[in-house]
Amino acid sequence: MAFRFSILHQDQTSCARLGLLHTPHGTVETPVFMPVGTQATVKTMTPEEVYEVGGRLILSNTYHLYLRPGFELIREAGGLHRFMHWDGPILTDSGGFQVFSLGPLRKVTEEGVTFRSHIDGSEHFFSPEKAMEVQMALGSDIAMAFDECAPYPCSREYALEVLERTTRWARRCLAVHNRAGQAVFGIIQGSTYPDLRLESAKGLVEMDFPGYAIGGLSVGEPKDLMYQMLECTIPVLPEEKPRYLMGVGSPDCLLEGIVRGVDMFDCVLPTRIARNGTVLTRQGKLVVRNAEYARDFKPLDPECDCYACRHYTRAYIRHLIKAGEVLGIRLTTIHNLHFVLNLMKEAKSAIRQGRILEYRDNFLKSYL
Amino acid sequence: MAFRFSILHQDQTSCARLGLLHTPHGTVETPVFMPVGTQATVKTMTPEEVYEVGGRLILSNTYHLYLRPGFELIREAGGLHRFMHWDGPILTDSGGFQVFSLGPLRKVTEEGVTFRSHIDGSEHFFSPEKAMEVQMALGSDIAMAFDECAPYPCSREYALEVLERTTRWARRCLAVHNRAGQAVFGIIQGSTYPDLRLESAKGLVEMDFPGYAIGGLSVGEPKDLMYQMLECTIPVLPEEKPRYLMGVGSPDCLLEGIVRGVDMFDCVLPTRIARNGTVLTRQGKLVVRNAEYARDFKPLDPECDCYACRHYTRAYIRHLIKAGEVLGIRLTTIHNLHFVLNLMKEAKSAIRQGRILEYRDNFLKSYL
Repeated sequence: MAFRFSILHQDQTSCARLGLLHTPHGTVETPVFMPVGTQATVKTMTPEEVYEVGGRLILSNTYHLYLRPGFELIREAGGLHRFMHWDGPILTDSGGFQVFSLGPLRKVTEEGVTFRSHIDGSEHFFSPEKAMEVQMALGSDIAMAFDECAPYPCSREYALEVLERTTRWARRCLAVHNRAGQAVFGIIQGSTYPDLRLESAKGLVEMDFPGYAIGGLSVGEPKDLMYQMLECTIPVLPEEKPRYLMGVGSPDCLLEGIVRGVDMFDCVLPTRIARNGTVLTRQGKLVVRNAEYARDFKPLDPECDCYACRHYTRAYIRHLIKAGEVLGIRLTTIHNLHFVLNLMKEAKSAIRQGRILEYRDNFLKSYL
Repeated sequence: MAFRFSILHQDQTSCARLGLLHTPHGTVETPVFMPVGTQATVKTMTPEEVYEVGGRLILSNTYHLYLRPGFELIREAGGLHRFMHWDGPILTDSGGFQVFSLGPLRKVTEEGVTFRSHIDGSEHFFSPEKAMEVQMALGSDIAMAFDECAPYPCSREYALEVLERTTRWARRCLAVHNRAGQAVFGIIQGSTYPDLRLESAKGLVEMDFPGYAIGGLSVGEPKDLMYQMLECTIPVLPEEKPRYLMGVGSPDCLLEGIVRGVDMFDCVLPTRIARNGTVLTRQGKLVVRNAEYARDFKPLDPECDCYACRHYTRAYIRHLIKAGEVLGIRLTTIHNLHFVLNLMKEAKSAIRQGRILEYRDNFLKSYL
């Protein structure tokens, strides 16, 4: 089955909407949050557990898989889905963000980026063509065009250079991409300059991508500035195409993104803070590894019905984390992903009922 | 329900037998292998997963739980079963073995042992009375008497001293133990001296324990010497009481123990080697983290039907382990525990059919 997006419902009080992403590995309701499986595994979890907490579409990282175990190996294994035993849809990023995060370890030219592996220091070259070759080998349902991500803050001059190169690279990606069924999304850059965002969006929309990502945000800028960028970018995107806000996953930002018309999100936040012993609750974050929970025999979140909250206490989970036991971070990861995915479920239901703004306000009142 | 052991079947070709351990948390078939949950968790696994691979009776460590999170905390939590969400039977060791493993960090007197915590260096005192107090608070189904474990090799003189002190300590344990339903097993010492083993067994049998452990073995002596000790000790133990060989868990030793009349075993070996990337197969150990498995798309053990072998390849599991991903050691742990517990299942079936010796010989032919 080819990739297709359909809109089921447009909210009248906000830009929020309900949709369906049809992919070769099944259909996914939007708005959707994608758990991140950087190295072909959502850290600490089995695919069945990811599904159980509500994960339907996962993200995996081209840069990491290219370095280890290598994309040819995954192709030999029958593709990423089979390699990692996940039958649902997968989105792969292009490696751009990771490569640019390497800082002094990389060098950009018009042709592409030369960088050194964070694992063994070996030298590699990534280009739009290479990013497509790797993602076609991985066989993801949605591939991302190779982009350059500007840091924050960023001069207007450099932001312009980055967005123009990203647009040229996007065209090169489309020119070489030929995997049937796999969609390629373009990535909008432009830092925090509204007119540059507009220019970036315009250039990409001309190429008629099946979906558009808003990149270069959630890189250190104030949240209000991120929301402003959404407000000026989303209206110029074609209504019938999915919009993906990259790297966003804190509960407040998810809701603020949804009401501004975002359909897709990904972020390591819920799983990363889980491994540090921090969990999400309706009353905000709770650092369960703190001493005050040593004799607290309540669940992580008394209002939650995830596996961790049904069977274990804060005292036990704290003990496991202090003792370095893997089950501790398994339980906090399950809880945090369940929390975020349940939030998305509730948000969808609120959109359906025309009360998404009220839902957001109520949630933020207790959460922030 | 009180503790009780019943024998269902005595093999005619060997000392092997089938039995049932009745405990307050359910009945368990013997011979049984106990997965080890040192810190109130079988490393990397949920209780449901332990049950799924065939675990029915688990062992937890008094020494570790006493130090962290503390036995009063576990008592407040409602006991160890509730704290760790395991409804089945639990055996707790006495802390003796761990304390004696501390070497220069401990000092033995007739009263007990002074030792320093391996976690923070704090000083503690353990005695037969303390070991009982802690295990009664934990609420295990089977508690172990506080013993001293002689190292190997060990002079006859010191072995005698150790066994005599262990016998006196066993009497003190019984004198203070008063938790209804919880059984206390005595531990036989005597190093590798047949007459000392006899003397130790005799002294403990006089106290009429509901079960007897054979301690001080699997501490570095040749396997043949361990088998000889079983052969001289088991015949003097009352037939109607369960016999527990402590710290034994390699597949060959399990089968050799079973044919010599052992009913219970525990060992960290299957779970520990799993975390190093080594798995058990019918053809012996396989180090899946080795480079030769990088492109091996077969399951860990093609003859195995565990969760790991049904869904994942050696190549994928090797990738996870090399990348430091938790799912890798979860899968090898599931496989290894399933392997050992399935071996016990097959052994029980072989005893029932009167072909346990043949089963052992066939297994060892391909395994060793």
